[in-house]
Amino acid sequence: MKLDFKYIDGGICAAQGYKASGTYCGIKRPANDTPDTKHKNDICLFTSDVPATTAAVYTQNKVKGAPLIVTKEHLEKTGGKAVAVIANSKNANTCNSDGVEKAQKMCDLVASELGIPCEQVIVASTGVIGQVLPIEPIEAAVPVLVKGLCYNKNLEAATAIMTTDTVKKEFAVEFKIGDATCKIGGMAKGSGMIHPNMATTLNFITTDCAISRDMLQAALSEIVQITYNCLSVDGDTSTNDMVVLMANGLALNDEITCEGEEYEIFKSALCEVMANLTKMLAKDGEGATKLIVCTCWGAKDVETATEVAKSVVCSNLLKCAIFGEDANWGRILCAVGYADADFDINKVDVRILSEFGEIEVCKNGAGVDFSEEKAAEILKSDEISIHVYLNEGERCATAWGCDLTYDYVKINGDYRT
Amino acid sequence: MKLDFKYIDGGICAAQGYKASGTYCGIKRPANDTPDTKHKNDICLFTSDVPATTAAVYTQNKVKGAPLIVTKEHLEKTGGKAVAVIANSKNANTCNSDGVEKAQKMCDLVASELGIPCEQVIVASTGVIGQVLPIEPIEAAVPVLVKGLCYNKNLEAATAIMTTDTVKKEFAVEFKIGDATCKIGGMAKGSGMIHPNMATTLNFITTDCAISRDMLQAALSEIVQITYNCLSVDGDTSTNDMVVLMANGLALNDEITCEGEEYEIFKSALCEVMANLTKMLAKDGEGATKLIVCTCWGAKDVETATEVAKSVVCSNLLKCAIFGEDANWGRILCAVGYADADFDINKVDVRILSEFGEIEVCKNGAGVDFSEEKAAEILKSDEISIHVYLNEGERCATAWGCDLTYDYVKINGDYRT
Repeated sequence: MKLDFKYIDGGICAAQGYKASGTYCGIKRPANDTPDTKHKNDICLFTSDVPATTAAVYTQNKVKGAPLIVTKEHLEKTGGKAVAVIANSKNANTCNSDGVEKAQKMCDLVASELGIPCEQVIVASTGVIGQVLPIEPIEAAVPVLVKGLCYNKNLEAATAIMTTDTVKKEFAVEFKIGDATCKIGGMAKGSGMIHPNMATTLNFITTDCAISRDMLQAALSEIVQITYNCLSVDGDTSTNDMVVLMANGLALNDEITCEGEEYEIFKSALCEVMANLTKMLAKDGEGATKLIVCTCWGAKDVETATEVAKSVVCSNLLKCAIFGEDANWGRILCAVGYADADFDINKVDVRILSEFGEIEVCKNGAGVDFSEEKAAEILKSDEISIHVYLNEGERCATAWGCDLTYDYVKINGDYRT
Repeated sequence: MKLDFKYIDGGICAAQGYKASGTYCGIKRPANDTPDTKHKNDICLFTSDVPATTAAVYTQNKVKGAPLIVTKEHLEKTGGKAVAVIANSKNANTCNSDGVEKAQKMCDLVASELGIPCEQVIVASTGVIGQVLPIEPIEAAVPVLVKGLCYNKNLEAATAIMTTDTVKKEFAVEFKIGDATCKIGGMAKGSGMIHPNMATTLNFITTDCAISRDMLQAALSEIVQITYNCLSVDGDTSTNDMVVLMANGLALNDEITCEGEEYEIFKSALCEVMANLTKMLAKDGEGATKLIVCTCWGAKDVETATEVAKSVVCSNLLKCAIFGEDANWGRILCAVGYADADFDINKVDVRILSEFGEIEVCKNGAGVDFSEEKAAEILKSDEISIHVYLNEGERCATAWGCDLTYDYVKINGDYRT
C-alpha cells in the first residue's frame, strides 16, 4: 500500500467545512479586576457546516471533568453526530458540585446562538481543578465567538486552549481516498499532568473524509493506543483528557464503512496527525528542554514493547540525566528492568541517538565501552532517541516524553497563583 | 496485646553480639589520583558473634545487582545462616560482565580474614550502575575492617553505605519476649532511585531475638509490604534493593517457631524499626525539603488503601505543589482518581494536616471552601500529612514520599560526575 500524504497548514480548519474562532473572556479574572491587557484567548468555538460523524475517547481517571460527562451524554443521544465544539482554558470545571450544570449551560448558549439542538454541541475545559467555573464571562463570549466563526481562524482556537503550553500545537495532512482529496487536521493542548490513559487532554481532530461512525471510532481507539497513550510528561493522568474526532464527509469520497485499503489509508493519515501532535505535546512538556523518544524493538508483542518504551520515558532519574546531558545508561536499563513485562534482561541492547550521532551503551544487559565525548556530543541535541532492543521477536513500539528540569518544579510549585 | 517498646541507640549494634566497622578505601578514586582528604567511609563490615538466622528480600527489578545474586545463593546454601555482611557505596556492581565474580571475591576476602566459610558472608553494593568495580581498594580494606570490628561502631557502618543521603539512618527498639529483653536495630541508605518493590536499597536489621528462619522470613516479608514497599522518592525501582534481617538468638528467649503472641510482639517491634527507617528514607529523598505522608482510610481492603496512598505520594505534580506550599488539592484527587483500584470517587474526602493545623479540602469528591491562609500556614511544616477517606470500609494504609524540588533535578542532572 502506497501512502502519499502532503503536510498542509490549517489545523482544525484544514479540512473542508470547518470554521473556528477564539477570544478572551476573562474566565480567570485578575485579582484587581482590571482588564488583563496581556491576556491570551481563553475560549474557542469551532463548527462543521454539516453535522459530522463524531468519535471520542476519554480519560480513564475515576475523577472525570464535568465537560466529559456532558459530551459523552450528547454523543450518545445523537448517535455520534456533532456540529459544534466549545472549549475553554484556565478552569477545568472538575470536582465542582455545579460542574455538570455549568457544562450543560455552555452547550445551551452555543446551541441557542447557532440555532441547533444542544445535543449537537460538545464541551471541553482545561485548567485548575476544583474552582467554580464563572459562567458570566462565557455568556458574554458566545455571541462574539459565533460572529467570529471563519474558515481560517484555526490559530485563534489553538491558542485559546493553551494552559502552560509555550507553543500552539496543530498538524494537518492531505491524502487521497479513491479520486477524492481528503484532509485531516487537528489541534492539541497539554504541557503538564500528561500521562494519558485512553486520550490526552483536549485534542480535537477534524476531517472531511466520509466514514461511518463505527469505523471512525475504531480508527480513533486504535491510533490513540500507539500515539497519545504512549506519551508521558509527568506520570499524572489528567481528569479532563479527551480526544474528539469529527468527520463531515464533505470530501465526497465513497463512505468508508468497512475494513480494507481505504480504511487503512485513513488510519495512516490519522496516525500521522496524532503522532505528530503527540510529539509536539512531549516536546512542550512543562519546563522541558529536550524531547525524549524511546523505541523498543524486537519484542514478542506490542504490549511488551509499549511497556518497556513507556517505562523508559517515565523515569524521573533518566529525565534528569538527559536534562544534564549525562549518558547515564544504567538508568535506562534500570527502567527497562522494572517495566511490567516479561522478557530476558540479559538479551537487551541499548543505543542512544540524535542528529549528532549514535552510540551503543549496553549489549546483552551489560555495559560496553563507549566514548564519553561522543555521548556528550549526541546529548547536546534537543531531540534524543533511545533504542532498546529486546532481541526476542518482531514487534516494536514508540513512547514520547521529555526531560525533567528546574522549570518543571518552578511551574508546578505555584501553578494556581 | 500490650506493646511496650523503648527506643534505644546503637543501630545495627543495638542488639547483643553484633560488631561493626567502616572505613574509606577509595572505590571511586579521585581523577587526579591524590588521596581524597574530605572522603567519607565507602565500605563497611558487620558481624554476629554466632551464626545468625537470616532472612532477606530483594528487588523485583529484572536487572539485579551482582551482590544480590551472590547473597541469595549463599543464603540458599546455608539454609539462611550468616555471620558477616560487607557493603560498599560509590559503585553498585550492576550490569558488569564480571560483577558476580567481584561480589564473590568480596565474600572470599571477608571469609578468609574471619576464618569462616564464604557462604556465611553476605555482600551488598550501592552507587553508580554499569561501572566496573575496582577490587584492589577492597582487598586492602578488608583486613582494616576486620581489625576495626567493635560493638559500638554502628555509625561507621551507617555512614559507609550513604550515597546522596544527607543524614545517616539508624533506628532501634528494646522489647520483652517473656522475661527476655530483646532488641532490634537497623540501618538504611537511599535517597534517589527509590520506589521499592519488595525491598529498598540496602537495609540491614539485626536482632538478638531467637526466632526460626521461617518465622523470620514471614515477618520480614509481611512488614516490608507495609513499610518499604509503601515508599517512593522518584518512582524508580532500584536494581540493588535488598533488606537483610539477622537474628542471632543471644537474647535467650524461648525461640519463636509459630504464630502467637510472641510472634506478634516481634513483628510489632520489627515494624516499628522498619517504619521509622522508611520515614527517614522518605524525608531524606534527593533534594527533598518536606516529608509527605499519605494515609488512606476507610478502604474495603488493604490493597485498595495502599494503591491510593502510593498513588498520591508518587504524583510529581503534587510533590511540586507541596514544595511550593500550594494547597492544590485537585492534584491529590487527580492522583486518587488514577490509582489502580476500585472505589467510588464521589464518596472521597480529603484533609491536609501538619503540626500547624488541619483543614478539609474535599468532601464527597468535590471541593469545599477553606481558608487559603490556614492552608498556607499548615504547608509551612516540613512534615505534611494527607488523609484520604474512601468511606467504603474499615482498612487503611500509609505511604511515604517527599516533595520534588530544584535540587532533585540538580543532583540527578550530573550524578556520575
